[in-house]
Amino acid sequence: MIRVGVAGASGLAGGELIRLVAQHPELELTFLGGSSSVGRRPAELHPNLRLDLGVTVEPVTEDLSGRCDVVLLATPAPVSAELAARLTDRVPAVIDLSGAFRIRTPELHERWYPSVRRSAELADRSVYGVPELVGDQMAGAPLISLPGCYATAITLGLAPLVLSLGLNLKTVVVDGKSGSSGGGLQLRTADLHPLRNGAIAPYAPVGHRHAAEVTDFLERGKPGRIGSLSMSAYGVSHVRGLMASSYAFTDDEVDERTLQRAYLRFYKEHPFVRVRRHTETLIPMPDPQAVLGSNYCDVTVLHDGEGGRIVVLAALDNLIKGAAGQAVQAINRRFGLPERAGLEMQPVMPA
Amino acid sequence: MIRVGVAGASGLAGGELIRLVAQHPELELTFLGGSSSVGRRPAELHPNLRLDLGVTVEPVTEDLSGRCDVVLLATPAPVSAELAARLTDRVPAVIDLSGAFRIRTPELHERWYPSVRRSAELADRSVYGVPELVGDQMAGAPLISLPGCYATAITLGLAPLVLSLGLNLKTVVVDGKSGSSGGGLQLRTADLHPLRNGAIAPYAPVGHRHAAEVTDFLERGKPGRIGSLSMSAYGVSHVRGLMASSYAFTDDEVDERTLQRAYLRFYKEHPFVRVRRHTETLIPMPDPQAVLGSNYCDVTVLHDGEGGRIVVLAALDNLIKGAAGQAVQAINRRFGLPERAGLEMQPVMPA
Amino acid sequence: MIRVGVAGASGLAGGELIRLVAQHPELELTFLGGSSSVGRRPAELHPNLRLDLGVTVEPVTEDLSGRCDVVLLATPAPVSAELAARLTDRVPAVIDLSGAFRIRTPELHERWYPSVRRSAELADRSVYGVPELVGDQMAGAPLISLPGCYATAITLGLAPLVLSLGLNLKTVVVDGKSGSSGGGLQLRTADLHPLRNGAIAPYAPVGHRHAAEVTDFLERGKPGRIGSLSMSAYGVSHVRGLMASSYAFTDDEVDERTLQRAYLRFYKEHPFVRVRRHTETLIPMPDPQAVLGSNYCDVTVLHDGEGGRIVVLAALDNLIKGAAGQAVQAINRRFGLPERAGLEMQPVMPA
Amino acid sequence: MIRVGVAGASGLAGGELIRLVAQHPELELTFLGGSSSVGRRPAELHPNLRLDLGVTVEPVTEDLSGRCDVVLLATPAPVSAELAARLTDRVPAVIDLSGAFRIRTPELHERWYPSVRRSAELADRSVYGVPELVGDQMAGAPLISLPGCYATAITLGLAPLVLSLGLNLKTVVVDGKSGSSGGGLQLRTADLHPLRNGAIAPYAPVGHRHAAEVTDFLERGKPGRIGSLSMSAYGVSHVRGLMASSYAFTDDEVDERTLQRAYLRFYKEHPFVRVRRHTETLIPMPDPQAVLGSNYCDVTVLHDGEGGRIVVLAALDNLIKGAAGQAVQAINRRFGLPERAGLEMQPVMPA
Repeated sequence: MIRVGVAGASGLAGGELIRLVAQHPELELTFLGGSSSVGRRPAELHPNLRLDLGVTVEPVTEDLSGRCDVVLLATPAPVSAELAARLTDRVPAVIDLSGAFRIRTPELHERWYPSVRRSAELADRSVYGVPELVGDQMAGAPLISLPGCYATAITLGLAPLVLSLGLNLKTVVVDGKSGSSGGGLQLRTADLHPLRNGAIAPYAPVGHRHAAEVTDFLERGKPGRIGSLSMSAYGVSHVRGLMASSYAFTDDEVDERTLQRAYLRFYKEHPFVRVRRHTETLIPMPDPQAVLGSNYCDVTVLHDGEGGRIVVLAALDNLIKGAAGQAVQAINRRFGLPERAGLEMQPVMPA
Repeated sequence: MIRVGVAGASGLAGGELIRLVAQHPELELTFLGGSSSVGRRPAELHPNLRLDLGVTVEPVTEDLSGRCDVVLLATPAPVSAELAARLTDRVPAVIDLSGAFRIRTPELHERWYPSVRRSAELADRSVYGVPELVGDQMAGAPLISLPGCYATAITLGLAPLVLSLGLNLKTVVVDGKSGSSGGGLQLRTADLHPLRNGAIAPYAPVGHRHAAEVTDFLERGKPGRIGSLSMSAYGVSHVRGLMASSYAFTDDEVDERTLQRAYLRFYKEHPFVRVRRHTETLIPMPDPQAVLGSNYCDVTVLHDGEGGRIVVLAALDNLIKGAAGQAVQAINRRFGLPERAGLEMQPVMPA
Repeated sequence: MIRVGVAGASGLAGGELIRLVAQHPELELTFLGGSSSVGRRPAELHPNLRLDLGVTVEPVTEDLSGRCDVVLLATPAPVSAELAARLTDRVPAVIDLSGAFRIRTPELHERWYPSVRRSAELADRSVYGVPELVGDQMAGAPLISLPGCYATAITLGLAPLVLSLGLNLKTVVVDGKSGSSGGGLQLRTADLHPLRNGAIAPYAPVGHRHAAEVTDFLERGKPGRIGSLSMSAYGVSHVRGLMASSYAFTDDEVDERTLQRAYLRFYKEHPFVRVRRHTETLIPMPDPQAVLGSNYCDVTVLHDGEGGRIVVLAALDNLIKGAAGQAVQAINRRFGLPERAGLEMQPVMPA
Repeated sequence: MIRVGVAGASGLAGGELIRLVAQHPELELTFLGGSSSVGRRPAELHPNLRLDLGVTVEPVTEDLSGRCDVVLLATPAPVSAELAARLTDRVPAVIDLSGAFRIRTPELHERWYPSVRRSAELADRSVYGVPELVGDQMAGAPLISLPGCYATAITLGLAPLVLSLGLNLKTVVVDGKSGSSGGGLQLRTADLHPLRNGAIAPYAPVGHRHAAEVTDFLERGKPGRIGSLSMSAYGVSHVRGLMASSYAFTDDEVDERTLQRAYLRFYKEHPFVRVRRHTETLIPMPDPQAVLGSNYCDVTVLHDGEGGRIVVLAALDNLIKGAAGQAVQAINRRFGLPERAGLEMQPVMPA
């Protein structure tokens, strides 16, 4: 059994990590770290969780040498930067779900995360990315930095265009729509149910950090190119799941059939990405409700005759494929377990 | 592997049965029956399902001799009555999720299901009830009739009062609140999203059949008694999960501590019933959202000093513990598998 | 024009008061009082409001002599108790929307509002109740105390049984279901959208103060009687509107036709109570969505043959008929305006 | 009083038209036309409506000569085309809410509405557009064709860029998000509550007809230009209200301050368009919830430094400013009433 610690017990990603670790046949939850929640049992913090998990929250500052094989950081970026520095000396692997190590280029990191002081040396040794693209590099890595929920969806959506078809995408506009769980459990008036329900909240019409993260990553990937990628993000009136719509303009020749085939081929060996036709079932595809509770990312690609626009839609569960499930997938890759281990749960729908 | 057939492929309960059977380590889906959906693959009907299930819908009238060890009927009651009669001669076990065999007393069945002609002989040989109460009788049974979603919640909620504490409940008022998935996918204007969202729809203010079902069952159980049990049911503005609130009046002496202990003791050996205190976590308990996607029924009992009222709240996922999960639990009991087999999935929250 | 002040500018009831006063042809908003929101314009606090209202929030402690003909208190009960005492000497009329003056009997007030110190003399001079029942007493009253949102619905639902038919109701069980706007905008984790959406939250399974309020009022009304009235209240997954379901048991002879006629007769002259048959339209009646945005209370009465149960369902918009609309209705009665003045807006549906 | 007929009584737009006409001080509802609903009273079809409206549904084919001054067509486009031809000879004014006469250019009409045979002569005499832009042409017009709900939002959002600032917009990408009321009350499985709630449904990822409509209109307006305009539309998990996000790329010099000023100036005299800053209130602006139930369109313009992108967000209530309210506004302009008459209702929020 691989011994797993989770830091950040009381947040939504923390809760999902506890749930998924407890369900995984090869993992054992040996540490739960928090600050204000020290002493609490998991089910007090997350009413859904099993009542008999046998752990309580300890201070996140505990020395974990010898207690964990891997520690998952579901903490704010500044805390993650600090914990990662301390823990990488003491445990074989650290996996960070925050933005602390996502942007590789130092100047860009500075610009988008000005308040996050991280070890440059550690950043260089870290592996960033979705397991579908960088999983091989994860084996044995001391620090894995997982993409944001939107960045995961956008990257999985655009990768076949850039990395396989090698298209030159002059302009990409990303429109992101997510449920309220993306905002966590911080107390903000705008996130109270009366104001958040029924909303279409343009919370990041310009300047979303995930856009920078994706560009920084795909630029290094070659062989295609992205001219400019801009993003606007909205909170809509459900809880779990997001859709990233990428509208890409290119002068290269493309047609829908070529696109569709390229996507199927690119994700053939990747069990968690489902390439789906827009009309293959009784609701338009993709839709986050069809992946809720699972580690899937459903992707649909279309070609819009008018003006050479490629439409890529990617839907995922932000707390699973966008956070905790992807972390478990990273553990699987890091420790040589089967990629699907502990992640076989199928989507819960309707919900 | 136990070979399982599912009749009623296109409905919501059918979709959940397919999902849970496919996830179960000891079950194999060998038949999928429908009518209008013949020839379709499961993921065309239920966009969440795995794309590679390897079965397509066949006519529900197929001869299943030698193909299935058990057939699950997620069909309307009149169809179930007919299929059960035909299939019990050909397959070892049939499990019916409809109302066809729920009410044992013939006169009551006539009254509440006037359009359902069932074999009286088969009804006598069938086992009805929640696995927690009648699981032992399920071993080897040719026909198992599962309670309705509300009946499951009400029965699990009241059983300790009647069967363990032996209280004489003069009057029980049940107020049921459920999400829209309880109504299935029939095309009714009132169930379209614009009219159903934001609604508190009193769809059965009097005369809900589940009330008759519960009374008919608990009356036979002894040693306590129920004077009258009436029910009103409402559709509220979410999709999955229900709450049955039972307000029971008794002249017997009770206090909250005795009640709480009796419930804990009664369900001690039953992994799917969680007895929870009202204030034990950050939201008031119980709440269907804390069991969504799982086979749990969360139960809370309170005593209202004013007028000797006992308040029993029972929350469950109507498509799982109220339908497909309970069916899998019944298979486990019928065939001697561990009760939890294939039902370990923990609730997905928030969703 | 009648000059109106509103204290409690930033809350939801405050926002609705501002909106309705601004829409009213005979009212003029001359004062807006708050504490943390001093200096803000209404549309900064409530994004829906007109941008050109021409008032800003002032300290709630302002001396309003000569500035207002009536002041509406949308403040917490302890604040209302204090403001009412001070303002009744300075302005002709004060209308309180809090619980400070709702319960007349001093011992009961003590028990249910232990932290609210109010002037006993002022309480005696105040008029409490729904305008439909006590509107005549409101003319010229110095202090009007309006019922809670649930109390309004329960009272309007039960009044014909008790006050007109004179039934002896041995036991009344009230089950209340409301949207999240009933909880206001306080920052509580359980009220964040991710935890509140999809919930059935039993926030007051026993001991709801509105039950005491109703009993205290109806007991004084004669000629019928209520043996015991108990209540359980739930938050469900929408924002605006509530349903109070009253299940009343009586040994008196009744039938549905008599009940229906009594209700129609009782509310014949009251434009804001609509007596509706359960099946008169395409959704089951009543439903709060059919009164959303209006000052209506829709009421349906049914008789349940099983066990002599009367089912009374009352649906209203908790922020309008349950708060701000009823306050405007009280102003109309207090100052001799037509009862419908400023309240002609018809329900917005679907929403 | 102006006598108004409404054709299409049972649909959502029809219901709103009845409500708004009944609330309007200068209008009188003299005819209600339908087909399957003939003989029904309005409140049977729309449970929110006043119970005493005094009209019942008549066959839509009635001869209305002398009965109506204006007839509003809330009928499907093919029916509208036919009714318009017949009615323009018999009543002074016809206002069509369908797509039958929206696209002026015959070839484009053919392409986007191949099944709609309309009179070319009538199309030429008709006035199309939002009252803010073409209101002056509406005075005395025999046939007014109102834009679609999305087209209204997009046009109001882009008009200042094209018509006032005269920008050359090389590429415009529109991402539309709407609630379920946009789909009406047709019986489609995908629109049942269980499948529609929690969805992000990409129902028109390419080829939305409103895009063609906007281009066709703005192209004629000068002096700016639109290179290409493409659109993708999504159904999200609420009922009423939409947001049109227009992402416009230009090589012309612009900055946010200039944009903001141009918008304020452009809409200065137009009471139903509110130009709002993104952060001016406690939720991000604009948001359809802040205009729900009103005839407002809230517009926010931002400039994204990265790549010269202009972000224009326009939010409106699709059943009011996007349909019935705009129709009343058109009546006001057509008959010389004050533009705000009958449209003073302020938004209902939270809802």
